[in-house]
Amino acid sequence: MSESERRETPDGLGAGLGQPLAISLREADRIAEEVRGLIKAGYEHHALAMLRGLHPADMASILAGLPRTSRDTLLRVMSPDTVVWMLQQMNPVEAARFSARLGSRVLMWVIGQMRPSQALATLERLTLFPFHILRIRKVAESLEQPLPEAEVEEILAHAPNTAGALMDEHAPAVMVDAMVGAAKDVLRDIGDVRRKLTHLFVTGDDGVVIGQVGMADLVIADDDSPVRPIASPIVATVAVDTPADECARLQRHYNLTQLPVVDEGRLIGVVLPEALLSATVEHDTRQMQQVASVAGETVGAPLSSSIRTRLPWLTVNLGTAFLAAGTVALFEPTLAQVVVLAAFLPVVAGQGGIGGTQTLTLIVRAIALGELVGVGAARLLVREAVLGLLHGVWLGILVAAIAIVWKQNLGLGLVLGLSMLGNMVIAGTVGAAVPLFLRRIGVDPAVASAVIVTTFTDVFGFLLFLGIATAAINLIV
Amino acid sequence: MSESERRETPDGLGAGLGQPLAISLREADRIAEEVRGLIKAGYEHHALAMLRGLHPADMASILAGLPRTSRDTLLRVMSPDTVVWMLQQMNPVEAARFSARLGSRVLMWVIGQMRPSQALATLERLTLFPFHILRIRKVAESLEQPLPEAEVEEILAHAPNTAGALMDEHAPAVMVDAMVGAAKDVLRDIGDVRRKLTHLFVTGDDGVVIGQVGMADLVIADDDSPVRPIASPIVATVAVDTPADECARLQRHYNLTQLPVVDEGRLIGVVLPEALLSATVEHDTRQMQQVASVAGETVGAPLSSSIRTRLPWLTVNLGTAFLAAGTVALFEPTLAQVVVLAAFLPVVAGQGGIGGTQTLTLIVRAIALGELVGVGAARLLVREAVLGLLHGVWLGILVAAIAIVWKQNLGLGLVLGLSMLGNMVIAGTVGAAVPLFLRRIGVDPAVASAVIVTTFTDVFGFLLFLGIATAAINLIV
Repeated sequence: MSESERRETPDGLGAGLGQPLAISLREADRIAEEVRGLIKAGYEHHALAMLRGLHPADMASILAGLPRTSRDTLLRVMSPDTVVWMLQQMNPVEAARFSARLGSRVLMWVIGQMRPSQALATLERLTLFPFHILRIRKVAESLEQPLPEAEVEEILAHAPNTAGALMDEHAPAVMVDAMVGAAKDVLRDIGDVRRKLTHLFVTGDDGVVIGQVGMADLVIADDDSPVRPIASPIVATVAVDTPADECARLQRHYNLTQLPVVDEGRLIGVVLPEALLSATVEHDTRQMQQVASVAGETVGAPLSSSIRTRLPWLTVNLGTAFLAAGTVALFEPTLAQVVVLAAFLPVVAGQGGIGGTQTLTLIVRAIALGELVGVGAARLLVREAVLGLLHGVWLGILVAAIAIVWKQNLGLGLVLGLSMLGNMVIAGTVGAAVPLFLRRIGVDPAVASAVIVTTFTDVFGFLLFLGIATAAINLIV
Repeated sequence: MSESERRETPDGLGAGLGQPLAISLREADRIAEEVRGLIKAGYEHHALAMLRGLHPADMASILAGLPRTSRDTLLRVMSPDTVVWMLQQMNPVEAARFSARLGSRVLMWVIGQMRPSQALATLERLTLFPFHILRIRKVAESLEQPLPEAEVEEILAHAPNTAGALMDEHAPAVMVDAMVGAAKDVLRDIGDVRRKLTHLFVTGDDGVVIGQVGMADLVIADDDSPVRPIASPIVATVAVDTPADECARLQRHYNLTQLPVVDEGRLIGVVLPEALLSATVEHDTRQMQQVASVAGETVGAPLSSSIRTRLPWLTVNLGTAFLAAGTVALFEPTLAQVVVLAAFLPVVAGQGGIGGTQTLTLIVRAIALGELVGVGAARLLVREAVLGLLHGVWLGILVAAIAIVWKQNLGLGLVLGLSMLGNMVIAGTVGAAVPLFLRRIGVDPAVASAVIVTTFTDVFGFLLFLGIATAAINLIV
């Protein structure tokens, strides 16, 4: 498809802001480069004109990727309406990430130029991203024209990463004994948020949510037919303090599109499909980062925040590295006798670390996806231990063969092969046991599993290798 | 909320199978244990009765977690209708994972009992999970009552992990000049799949998709009003061979709910919201697993498939571990002179490995989320190198202090601190450079980054530490 075709917006469709078409990441990269060049040359209005033809999500990506000064230049010539439009059209997580990138000062300036209702709507959108709660308060308090305090408080009332923070308070509902015509009136009255809904909730006489009607079923129903026969029961409800991760699990596991938020059964909001998807992507990002001990970081964050995230884990890891060093130090006499052993230290420990990380990653993800329901821990432990044994046999033979050929030392080969075998079994067992144990005691297994498992594989790797070498020293020397 | 409240299904709502309510993972675990106990005691019909009250997704989770023999016993007393219902109600990825767990023989038996239309629908649902294409063909070919070959071929026609495999072929559309009444007739005619749609597509006279109408807008429109003014343009279309990952990106980035699949502009299918969510979750799972070199594995897979996934990477890693071992071996004379150096080998290399993995995980995820649009590689490299430097200063001082206190050796402390500093800078730089380079040459950075980065940090860690020690040997001895 040529570029001109891609950009063509069908004539006469839609009102107001004609939405442009999607572009590839590569094309976005190319446009970003041109925009940067134009701003550098002092043509910021031309740069803005280039952005205007794009989808708001692409405008935001490109703005976010610009160096800070260029971005600020461009934002100064942009109308606040455009920024509001961008934030409303984007996926909520990307919207929040984008404004995180802007920095508090620019965010204050942009929001300061908005009408109060726009400013409130923008602030509400940002609460989806937990990082922002404090910054949002700071921005709200700094505005020259202060926003109604009660409404700001309401936006900030819900704990981050909960259904309360994810939810939209415009959750339409109709009584179960109403007619379809009344249901349609409800949708007419709530305005544009109806476009984001997949179902209209149904309540009993007491206001308790008992079901929902799909939009498609409403479309084909007659106005004077009753709602009841086309309603279906609610599969899951959440409370304001239900964790966002649990909302994501409910969506995925029960194949739902939106979730009613209730208080003693009464409807107080809805987690929209876009918020649920955001919760899933956020959860997955955090989990992947947690396994590598960088949770919560973004590439564009200031250095200080990156250091705050990473350095504590690096320091903890240094402690465990000294445990391993202490283990090696125990065997200094052996090492003094056979210096060549030192070269093989990283081999045994390293393979164990990789094997253990493979197992723990699988288990951590399987726990998150709810795949371990009813699966006994013992069964998983045995499975991973056996796998470790099989891997250990192969790697042990391989490592022994290489050592024998390289160093012409049969004893060294045997010691190496045997300790490799042992450490792979330990890696499999510990790689499964640690996340399962952390889950049992209520700790998120993604957070600490990796550092614990690699400590085990390092310490036991050295202990096995140097221990066996010490015992069989006569075979090696 | 007490258990009895949770299970209560609202009276008179919905037709046919009254859907029960969601349960927590903990509750699912408890029920799974009871079910296992009942089957063990020979009461499989009682076990089945316990499952009957549950949501199909929970039935499947519990079945999947049972030991193979118990599961087969239970499936034998279950009606195939129940299995069909489960697979249709579940999230497509979980449905495919569930049937992967069943094993080909059981799957053949279950599908063999279905009516041909049910069997085809079930097979189609399974194509969402790439692992299954071959198994599906095997199952289809083994059925006693063979399915219409053309239809089986159509199901299997699309490459795994593409929009073609994800799509539903029932994509309803209405002409742009039609009236709303006609649009409603289209929805009436397509049957139950309408419940999964969020929009009705709009085509021009030539059959080319040019827009869509949201269900909520159709609900409130009059039958005799035209479709055109309530239609909005299409933001993105995909082809049958568009990768599933790109579909997931389009959904996330442009905040879309469903994607039209087109062939020369003409509508041939739709990727439904549930399939898009599945694509996102699959992508995230694979990416997280790839960083740990276990991509594509599931916890319940047979041992042989786990070995096929993990052992190649473990073997590649053994090769790189010998590169590191070779580096250490270069310095045997130094080690022979100062054996205590051996104890600190894992410290310098290990910290570099952790730091490098932190950086690469961040970059891999940022690439996947499209956060690096327009961000120059140089800027990222400098950022991570500076971070590595700052971390290196802190860790270097710490490690030097510990070594000096522990071993009473100032020279050793200096060598250790300096090499730590150097290796952390290398870790940051390489951790950013490798995924960026792999992306540039068109290789998925999640696949190979980790093994390359840790090889660098191991080899350079040893080289720096032992190299500086050799140069400054007089300070240490």
